[in-house]
Order: sequence, then structure tokens, then C-alpha cells
Amino acid sequence: MKRNPCIANIKAGYLFPEIARRRREFAAANPDANIISLGIGNTTEPIMPHINAGLVEGARKLGTAQGYSGYGDEQGMTALREGIAQTMYQGALKPEEVFISDGAKCDIGRLQLLFGAGTPAAVQDPSYPVYVDGSVLIGAAGAAGSAGSAGAAGYAGISYLPCTAENDYFPDLSKIPAKGLIYFCSPNNPTGATSGREQLASLVQAALQKKSIIIFDAAYSEFIRDPALPKSIYDIDGARECAIEVNSFSKTAGFTGVRLGWSIVPMELKYETGENINADWNRVCTTIFNGASNIAQAGGLAALDPEGQKEIRSLVHFYLENAKLIRSSLETLGISCVGGDNSPYIWAHFPGRNSWEVFTDILEKCHVVTTPGAGFGPAGEGYARFSAFGNRAAVEEACSRLGRYRR
Amino acid sequence: MKRNPCIANIKAGYLFPEIARRRREFAAANPDANIISLGIGNTTEPIMPHINAGLVEGARKLGTAQGYSGYGDEQGMTALREGIAQTMYQGALKPEEVFISDGAKCDIGRLQLLFGAGTPAAVQDPSYPVYVDGSVLIGAAGAAGSAGSAGAAGYAGISYLPCTAENDYFPDLSKIPAKGLIYFCSPNNPTGATSGREQLASLVQAALQKKSIIIFDAAYSEFIRDPALPKSIYDIDGARECAIEVNSFSKTAGFTGVRLGWSIVPMELKYETGENINADWNRVCTTIFNGASNIAQAGGLAALDPEGQKEIRSLVHFYLENAKLIRSSLETLGISCVGGDNSPYIWAHFPGRNSWEVFTDILEKCHVVTTPGAGFGPAGEGYARFSAFGNRAAVEEACSRLGRYRR
Repeated sequence: MKRNPCIANIKAGYLFPEIARRRREFAAANPDANIISLGIGNTTEPIMPHINAGLVEGARKLGTAQGYSGYGDEQGMTALREGIAQTMYQGALKPEEVFISDGAKCDIGRLQLLFGAGTPAAVQDPSYPVYVDGSVLIGAAGAAGSAGSAGAAGYAGISYLPCTAENDYFPDLSKIPAKGLIYFCSPNNPTGATSGREQLASLVQAALQKKSIIIFDAAYSEFIRDPALPKSIYDIDGARECAIEVNSFSKTAGFTGVRLGWSIVPMELKYETGENINADWNRVCTTIFNGASNIAQAGGLAALDPEGQKEIRSLVHFYLENAKLIRSSLETLGISCVGGDNSPYIWAHFPGRNSWEVFTDILEKCHVVTTPGAGFGPAGEGYARFSAFGNRAAVEEACSRLGRYRR
Repeated sequence: MKRNPCIANIKAGYLFPEIARRRREFAAANPDANIISLGIGNTTEPIMPHINAGLVEGARKLGTAQGYSGYGDEQGMTALREGIAQTMYQGALKPEEVFISDGAKCDIGRLQLLFGAGTPAAVQDPSYPVYVDGSVLIGAAGAAGSAGSAGAAGYAGISYLPCTAENDYFPDLSKIPAKGLIYFCSPNNPTGATSGREQLASLVQAALQKKSIIIFDAAYSEFIRDPALPKSIYDIDGARECAIEVNSFSKTAGFTGVRLGWSIVPMELKYETGENINADWNRVCTTIFNGASNIAQAGGLAALDPEGQKEIRSLVHFYLENAKLIRSSLETLGISCVGGDNSPYIWAHFPGRNSWEVFTDILEKCHVVTTPGAGFGPAGEGYARFSAFGNRAAVEEACSRLGRYRR
């Protein structure tokens, strides 16, 4: 059997298992170190009572004749699709435009099937790894080792759009491809930067002009506290003609392990030959997906009602307080940072340093796990990402230990 | 944006949503009809107490500081991988060969990424739709409308291996492609036929000779009652060098809506260039998948312990009793059948009839939903599948109504 050449083309391991591996090695060599992770964006707080009761009841009723359900629609429960359209988008979307999934990462992998091999792609650089790795897997990227931004290694066929302090973490849109996909995440993972209304309006205009489609990752939208910042790409005129949005309950309801997300494919979205993309997405989901867990969906329904929304605001507030502590500790050390205000990530600058060395340095001196910036793309070199998902005592302890970094 | 030509190549709608649509239309036109479904293989019995308690506890503990968990390993909880290796394969597999997933359908879609576009494929004809539709989506099939078996429409690049009464529902293995994928399901969906040890040994030999890989779908293995029939392809010598197995908790623990399955990729499995396929599967799972729900996995652990296994045997027995009732009702009408003894499906023969017409006929006369054989492939024409997943009263009522069919 031949190996899919697209897999052979993927460089190295997926970022987070690689970090986990290095952490395990360090822990094995230093059994007394009480390692704290500010690395992977993994939620740590228990699911709050009302939402948790939704999950428990969702599980319990499967044991009863009245409450049992088997296969549901692959696209998700109607009530949940309606609830998301209503609560998350104030009724501005139709329920048939909402597709429930087992999470944004999985959705992005499947969405790439709509366009297939050879589709040009642009990513913010740095960016969440699945945009690039998924593109490589589907054959939408060329050979590895081509020049990306800043001359670092990247894939041919993928435009790396540097987002750095110099451009206020918003890319030069003249570099986006025609008839291609633009992966765009705001509030951004990993930089924590959040794009303003005018910036997003220029993104939508650029996509429309280039006849490209934006895959807008809004997984952190609920962390936005500044009312002037848009929470959805559909807050921008024209986005319904050029954007797909993915979102998730992972970070807001603590569902990272429960697995529940959604994607939006507006009815106006068409291929150049006129076919409706929503209909194709429906076909992809019914063909190779079988729906999110009905228990997770029961939890999602609880998360959307007024009590659930209150719990989400409270949990988001808690993590944003963590973010404030981390950012202030780093700034006290003279390390310049972005993010952590409308996002759970703090992007810390270590100019001129190799980011895996910074990772190792912080792990060895502080016993704190971070995520090396270079893991997110060529322009992440010289940066480290700090995640605010941690319990308060651990975050406070980590902040105190960060003082050892300068020694 | 260009449309992925692979999607344009998929014919018609996915089978089960199409059946649901026709059922809804009939119900709308006949509001008094009490329609009973023996169509989609959707479980109907409540999850049994011990396994359900595992799910409820899995959900409950996410609300506690001690019990909360976020992202787990994409490949699944170590305890569950170990439990499957031990309980389902008597320790004959390594836990690292077991990958936990959100179900067999989703796994099959992802597995196709290992080999990619242009890989020849063979399917039993009739077969579960995802093997062919997923192959089309990944670009492993040519144009639709080519001659399949029996001269009916099929896709170029896919070998349709007829499985009919004439060959005891076991295909002519001289027709399998070299260096290709062989999708093989036993106990079979839809025919209900179960392959014996010698038949599976000849399948493994053929795969080894042709340097092809078997994707063995064992989702119905627990329905096997005849101790002489193998439950896993790995019961056959040589299978570790040429077979991937997928399986699921859907039909045995009633997890169709909960979503939990697994795939086995043995360490011996290599590409022709020598790379380890297990390592690539790990890469695919970590790249575009994020693990099955931790609640579903907690339920899976409960399903594997002695009490859970006892419940599974009892549930399987219940559905097999349904199968006996359905098969006997059909045979009373002089309709010849296969399956229903070691499988939950009964494959009924309506010689010379169009299977969608048979579907409509049974729906209109008996208010019973079936699955038309042609939906499973060209050689399914003239057959209908009856599913034994129903509660007893409904199955008995359906059996009684089937008497109207001959009127």
C-alpha cells in the first residue's frame, strides 16, 4: 500500500503532544518538581452547576424508556441549532446555517474537504496548528521547507501572514491569495490580539475582492470584554457572502473534554460555479460524521439558557482574572506582552531568542510549562504563549515562580 | 472558490437522511399512520443501569474539582485502550494499537486519509454507504455512472464485489485490487451474513497476496452467537500484517447517540515503503480529531467491566430475539431471508422488484419503514433490509402488519 504523500509531507509531531512529551521527560528526570502548566489551552475549572446538571440529566435520561435517544441528526439537535442562532447570534442566523459538531478542531479538518486539494490558503502567522496541518493532510499545501514569513520554514502554497507588534498583530491583506481560504482567528490564538471592527471590515472586503473564503475561528469570542470589538464575523457587512465561522463550548463552558462546537455556513455562500456551500457542508457532515454526543448536546442546551449564560460569564471572568495576573507578572519582569485583556492568552516577547530554548528555560527554572511561539508558525519565533486556563492557586504560584526566570 | 470535484462526484443524498425525508413526507400526508421504523439501525432500548451509571458518574464528576478533566489524549483514555485490548481482544493486542473514537463511521472517514486520493478500493456489494461515499470524498473513486456489479451504476476505481445468495454472501476474491483497500464487514451490514473462519482466512490470504489492506468493520461482532464464527479479523493468522479493524459501542451498549468506538492499527502494518501505519494514524488522529467525549469514555469503561459485559450480552440477546420474530414473519409470507441469527439485520429478497418501490409499498401498506437494498449498492437491488433494533411491542406490531404486504 502506498502512503498518502500528504501525510509524509507533515513536518514533525503535532505541537501539543510534543510539549506533553517534553514535560513528561522533565518530570521523570525531576520527580520532585511540581510542574504547573500554562501551556496547552486546557480548561481546569469544574463545569458550573447548572450546565453540569444539563450534562448529568442528559446522561441519566438515556437510561429511561421515555428519555432514551439513539442517532440524532448529524447536524445536531434542532433545539440546539435554534438556541445557538438565537442566543449567540441574536437571531441573525437561520438554524439551518448552524451545524453542531464535536469541536472546532474537528470541524476545521472536515471543512477543508469542501474545497479539497490544491486550494491556496493563507494563515495568520503565528496561528493555531490545525489550519496548516489540516491543509497539508488534505493536499492543499506543497512541499515543506519553502520560505515562509521571515524566511523561516513553511509550506509552499500557504501564505504566512505575519502578525507581530509592528503591524498591531493584524496582517497585510495584500498578501492573501485569490480564490483561496483565509484562516483568521480573533481573539487570536496564540497572540491574544483581538481585531477591531474596521480591521475585520477590511478583511471581509479583501476576501470579497479576491473571491476567497474566510474560515473565521471565533472560539474565544466570549472572552471579549470591550463592547466595541465584534464577537462574530457576521457583525461585519458582507461576511455572509464570504465567511464560514467556527466556534466551540470548550473554553466557555469547560467542555474541552466533553466535545461540543459548531460551524456556521450562511446560505449566501456559493462556489464560483454557483453551487450552495451549505448544501455541500450538510453532505460532508452526513457522510463522514455522525453527530456530537447527545449528552454533550444536552449540556449545550443548558449552557444557552439564561442561567447557563450567567455561569459562562462568570467562568470567563475568572480566567480573565488569571490572565491579568500572568500578564502583570511578565510585565513586572520587563517582558513585553500582548493579549490577556479580551482573550485567555498572553503572548510574551523574548526578542532574539529561540522559542524552544525559552520553553526549556522556563520549564527548568520555574517548573512552568508554556507553549513555544515557533510551534505556531515561523513568525512565532522569539515568543512564548502563556495560557490563563488554570486554577487560581496554581496561576498565583506560577506567577511567583516566573520571578526566577531572570536569575 | 472552486468546489472540491470529489464532492460534486458524490451521487444523491446520504441514504439514511433520504429515507427520513421520505418517511416525513408520508407521515405529513398520512397523519394518522402510526409508522414503525425497521429502517435505520438505530437502537431503541434504554442504556442498561450499570453502563448508564458510568455515563452519569462521568458527567457528574466534571462538576467537581477532583473529578474535572479537560482535553484528554486524542487517542483516548489509557484505561479504556487497555480495557478494550484486554476485554475485547483477550490481551492479544497492545493498548497502543487501540485508538478510541467517536464512532466507526467517523473513523472510516479519517482512515481514508492514510492512503489518500487514487487508492483503489473494493467493497462488498451491497455495503454500508460510508465506505464508498467516503472514498469518493477523499478522491479515491473515479466518475460515477460506471458499470458496477450487475451492470448497475457505480464509481470507477471501486470494485463492487457482489455478495448474494448465489455465492453464500461471500465475494469472489479474485476481483480484489492490488495495493488497494478492501472494506469488509462481518456480521454484514446490510445482509446480516456472517463469514466463517475459512472464508476470513481466504480473505486475509488474498489481501496479503495482493499487498492490499482490509478495513474490517466488526461493529456487529457481539451479535455472533455461533462459537465457531470469528469475532475479530485478528482471530485469523496473518491479519496483523494486512488489516485495520473498526468497532463501536453503538449497537451493543446503546451508544448510537453517545458516540464511542475504536479502531485497531497493529504495529506490524506497514506501507510498501516500510513506514509504520500506526504512527501515521496517530498523527491523523492528533491533527484533525480531539478525542471522544470524556463522558462517553467513562461509559465505555463501565461497559467493559463484568457487570457491563453482562448487560451487553442481555441487550444483544434482546435484539436477536427481535430479529428472530422479524425473520420468521417474513418467511411465513414466503419471503426468503438471510441474517438475523448472528446479526441484527435481516436481508429479505424481493426478486425482480425495484427496491425503492418495495420500500414505498411496505411503507404504504404496513406503515413500516425499511431500508431499500439498492441504497447499499448495485447488488442490493431486489432486496430490503429489516433492522431488529426496536422495542418489542413495536417489533411485534410491525411483524403483524407485514401480513398486509401480500394483500
